[in-house]
Amino acid sequence: MPDDAAVKYLLDDAELPTHWYNVVADLPTPPPPPLRPDTGEPVGPDDLAPLFPPELISQEVSGERYIEIPEPVRAVYRQWRPSPLYRARRLEQAWGTPARIYYKYEGVSPAGSHKTNTAVPQAYYNSINGITRLTTETGAGQWGTALAFACALFELSCEVWQVGASYDTKPARRTLIETFGATVHRSPSRDTISGKAFAEDHPGSLGIAISEAVEVAAADPEIKYALGSVLNHVLLHQTVIGEETLRQLDKAGETGADLVIGCAGGGSNLAGLVFPFLREKLAGNQSPRLLAVEPAACPTLTRGEYRYDFGDTAGLTPLLKMYTLGHDFVPSAIHAGGLRYHGMAPLVSHVVSQGMVDATAIPQNECFAAALEFARTEGIVAAPESAHAIAAARREASACAESGREQVIVLGLSGHGLLELGAYASYLAGGLADESPDADSPSSVDLRTALGTVPVVG
Amino acid sequence: MPDDAAVKYLLDDAELPTHWYNVVADLPTPPPPPLRPDTGEPVGPDDLAPLFPPELISQEVSGERYIEIPEPVRAVYRQWRPSPLYRARRLEQAWGTPARIYYKYEGVSPAGSHKTNTAVPQAYYNSINGITRLTTETGAGQWGTALAFACALFELSCEVWQVGASYDTKPARRTLIETFGATVHRSPSRDTISGKAFAEDHPGSLGIAISEAVEVAAADPEIKYALGSVLNHVLLHQTVIGEETLRQLDKAGETGADLVIGCAGGGSNLAGLVFPFLREKLAGNQSPRLLAVEPAACPTLTRGEYRYDFGDTAGLTPLLKMYTLGHDFVPSAIHAGGLRYHGMAPLVSHVVSQGMVDATAIPQNECFAAALEFARTEGIVAAPESAHAIAAARREASACAESGREQVIVLGLSGHGLLELGAYASYLAGGLADESPDADSPSSVDLRTALGTVPVVG
Repeated sequence: MPDDAAVKYLLDDAELPTHWYNVVADLPTPPPPPLRPDTGEPVGPDDLAPLFPPELISQEVSGERYIEIPEPVRAVYRQWRPSPLYRARRLEQAWGTPARIYYKYEGVSPAGSHKTNTAVPQAYYNSINGITRLTTETGAGQWGTALAFACALFELSCEVWQVGASYDTKPARRTLIETFGATVHRSPSRDTISGKAFAEDHPGSLGIAISEAVEVAAADPEIKYALGSVLNHVLLHQTVIGEETLRQLDKAGETGADLVIGCAGGGSNLAGLVFPFLREKLAGNQSPRLLAVEPAACPTLTRGEYRYDFGDTAGLTPLLKMYTLGHDFVPSAIHAGGLRYHGMAPLVSHVVSQGMVDATAIPQNECFAAALEFARTEGIVAAPESAHAIAAARREASACAESGREQVIVLGLSGHGLLELGAYASYLAGGLADESPDADSPSSVDLRTALGTVPVVG
Repeated sequence: MPDDAAVKYLLDDAELPTHWYNVVADLPTPPPPPLRPDTGEPVGPDDLAPLFPPELISQEVSGERYIEIPEPVRAVYRQWRPSPLYRARRLEQAWGTPARIYYKYEGVSPAGSHKTNTAVPQAYYNSINGITRLTTETGAGQWGTALAFACALFELSCEVWQVGASYDTKPARRTLIETFGATVHRSPSRDTISGKAFAEDHPGSLGIAISEAVEVAAADPEIKYALGSVLNHVLLHQTVIGEETLRQLDKAGETGADLVIGCAGGGSNLAGLVFPFLREKLAGNQSPRLLAVEPAACPTLTRGEYRYDFGDTAGLTPLLKMYTLGHDFVPSAIHAGGLRYHGMAPLVSHVVSQGMVDATAIPQNECFAAALEFARTEGIVAAPESAHAIAAARREASACAESGREQVIVLGLSGHGLLELGAYASYLAGGLADESPDADSPSSVDLRTALGTVPVVG
């Protein structure tokens, strides 16, 4: 076989994971619980009941190591899972590195990203509880697409609040969500109190869109809310990525990884890939460095504070102990829309605070440069989010080229960028700015006061 | 397993076909040869030498049944091949049909369609002959994308003439081609005599774009031309699709297919899927009906004449015996850009004329209606071209629902439609017209006169 041959490592349907992995069971210290903002007490299952079905609440607070994946969910997963792990031999040659670079590709899912891994179980659990409609937010659009797909399969209606800047500039994303049968609102919308607190032409943020979707779900018992990242149960569902990757590396003849890289916005893609590796590390089976990559324009882990904050802008969610840039932070309009989130999953924040996972921030021009090299060698146009993982791999591969170290690098390619070609066009035309994180953060708005008595969690 | 579970049939890397299948070896009568327009004599290998490397010319005129796929080509194929065959159980349920519907999905390729199957060997054979640049045309953009990808791998530069209407309305497609490193010209361009024969704002056609790319390649010995359909060697390369499908149906426990459906523009997707089935049919191993589906707006096989005509608008190609609407036919601006071609591959035309393959034409609204049902059950947004095959399957599935017949239907899903969401948006908004084929066919233009002494084939 030629040195530059594409090599993929597939698993049989029979090797599809039967269980999700819950990292909480293996952590030396438990992560701090979410708190009710009114009482300061830990949030209990009853507090979450207006928003989520019982199975998801149970998963959210579970300490069990493994949670079985229901067969109807596995039946859907089988359409694209196990997803392929590729050895990037052509990329290694282009970079002149002795490192062996592998990428786990989640863009093969129907919605084009890892988000489908949690959208399917969330839709499933809601459907078996008689729920008829789900609400959600979407930034880059990957999550809204995934939930729309999952709702189509389980015959739920689906309403998506799409961050205004994304809605305005990416009509194809809206069309894709509608093709799957969902309804799309521009956020801030006029349909909610949370939305009306902002001007109609405001570019929006994930925090605002979350507030809108939560507000609508909390007001009607037949409507539930679905979140695409941050929460424990979402991270749990994503662990199929890392579980498969471990088996595939074994098939590739590797005894383990030296470096595992995932981009981090809300944290679910990163956690899905690295938590199973963290289990192996804590068990002493291998000792990979685990690395979260975030955009320089939204450096939550590298420049945020580790403290309790709201998950949304309006303050409708419980208080979460996490790295945060402040719940009113509005990052500049970088192209990696999925990484423009002020906070970070509490579980990811916890393991980063404990030194078990490292973090770095990379400016977007460097990410697109790496993604272009990736496209021209591996043939895959990466999502701008995933480009951050490629850029981090390039830094490491370059260090290996200098030192001669034959590291095994695994990067999570969370999705394709076929609906983000406008970003590539801007990069090719030389038009991308590397914004500072402080570029257009607005002054704080006290939405909790404005919202008054909306019935919400916490 | 639930009745509506997605079921995929994969093959191991070791089951990747080692040979392409040449249907010519098994045809009861040979297809009529291409002719030189100046002499009326059959075209010989020397006539093709200005445009193609020797291996492709040899394949073009070969009568051998099997032609070995070079290992460097198989090494690239392995990135996404063997491509999956799916049983569309959720779609069957939605359609309430007893038919068992399978789809062979070529959208998993790096370029998103079947076109990569021939782009890779074409780039490979040119590269080993010291060629430095390839020129080509693209309509919908699938072919230009595939060739750009293949040229990136084999370090050739690549120039693409994109049909004007496509260039103007689909900037993302152009960006994708550029992301893979190729140069894109709007056709008709000012760079060629063929292009200058038309107004700069002319919407263009595949025939015009072919003329431009051929003209540039013919004028420079270091530049060759690559065609994405029509010719024998292109159809040959696509037969990996049908060869894999036969093996996968066997794995699915089927003794054969009752109906095999492919959309047909230039004919390569159709041929790639059905020719291996035709071999089995001629050998008496199974007796599937083979069906070509074309748009009602460009009904080459169903309403065209079977006669010698040029493959391009300017008349730079040899004369090909084929079904044709006339080489100056400009179909209305339907969304299935890849099916807007005035002619049809001579080999496909030959087997249709002999009654071995049937043809039908379907209006685009019916195609999008079927594609929307497909997206909401199978989770894949089909290319508008592929939607024609889905619509034909729906007609047959509906007949099965009435008759109770448990037919095995195989449809070729030639590509995804993620760069064609504008077409879906128009359909969702109710804005698609079902144009007649005569809508805006222009009066004939004698380009051969205008072109004078351009050095070209034939």
